Amino acid sequence: MRYPAHLLKLMEILKRFPGVGSRSAERFAFNLLDWSKEQLAEFSKAIDEMPDKLQHCPECGCLKDDRACAFCIPTRQASQLLCIVANPRDALCIESTREHSGLYHVLGGLISPLEGITPEKLKIAKLKERIASLNIKEVVVALDATVEGDTTSLYLKQELASFPLTLSRLAFGLPMGSSFDYVDGGTLARALSGRAIF
Amino acid sequence: MRYPAHLLKLMEILKRFPGVGSRSAERFAFNLLDWSKEQLAEFSKAIDEMPDKLQHCPECGCLKDDRACAFCIPTRQASQLLCIVANPRDALCIESTREHSGLYHVLGGLISPLEGITPEKLKIAKLKERIASLNIKEVVVALDATVEGDTTSLYLKQELASFPLTLSRLAFGLPMGSSFDYVDGGTLARALSGRAIF
Repeated sequence: MRYPAHLLKLMEILKRFPGVGSRSAERFAFNLLDWSKEQLAEFSKAIDEMPDKLQHCPECGCLKDDRACAFCIPTRQASQLLCIVANPRDALCIESTREHSGLYHVLGGLISPLEGITPEKLKIAKLKERIASLNIKEVVVALDATVEGDTTSLYLKQELASFPLTLSRLAFGLPMGSSFDYVDGGTLARALSGRAIF
Repeated sequence: MRYPAHLLKLMEILKRFPGVGSRSAERFAFNLLDWSKEQLAEFSKAIDEMPDKLQHCPECGCLKDDRACAFCIPTRQASQLLCIVANPRDALCIESTREHSGLYHVLGGLISPLEGITPEKLKIAKLKERIASLNIKEVVVALDATVEGDTTSLYLKQELASFPLTLSRLAFGLPMGSSFDYVDGGTLARALSGRAIF
């Protein structure tokens, strides 16, 4: 097709988004043609400002704007509770439950030898440093219920064994609202072995 | 959730894309966090340059870059054949079939009273002007096989009745590779009434 060069360039860039293939990229690029000049300028500016306005907190790794990190505050430090997550988004998910009032530590991924993510690439040294300096008493490992999540959790258990703290991991079991018809055997097995007296 | 303000702003903007809801916008915004500073700058620049580098040809309405329109050229004018499409993208679709070597005319939409698109909002006056000045002998109406496409085609038939030209519309029938099991009754009826001797 005789696509103008700039349209092709835009499509190439849009394909970087997750789950966006040639077809969606084309739809998005043509959609952009209908945006007003002001809307385009607003979008361009928002993208351009990202490195300045969205940063990773050097301490916990969570997302922060150009001000101080909203999670690394004295009241949260006082709890002596720390939640380990894989990425900043997971921290926001935990935060939205309102069940955690302690600190966060973003690992920056999960151990996955196939993808070249070895333990050295995760922020584990920094984690130990923070646990010691902040005098953390309880650590909650909040990682995915996947092979990578399990591997990373076990690795963390070994690494943190020498610290005087309570280490826990998120519960596995039936998701809320689920019926037996749609729950897989693995989940059911975990729900049984993790059964609680009520 | 404690989303940084800039992330929320980005998500709002990304939701303007077709088929992108809160969930996808969030995924895209977090994905942008993983882009390098160079990639972000490239994206921002590409968006910013759109109004300059992608324009609608004032003559035919097709997309063009900052140079002359690739469709409004003498060899195509010589064919005295003009294809009417709803938008610039449809012109590129027709072009990719390599079955059309004439000119294009982009209407800018289809008649749809419910969406407030009345015939006056389409480039029909310009179409008549071009048909007269370019001495067009054949017009192919290449519009969607929808109610809006049908309405617009019938309207164009009336409007162009006074011109000495052959007016045709794309054929309706079985799509290539289709089997009767999956073809709806309407398509089958049109395929029957439009049957051709072979």
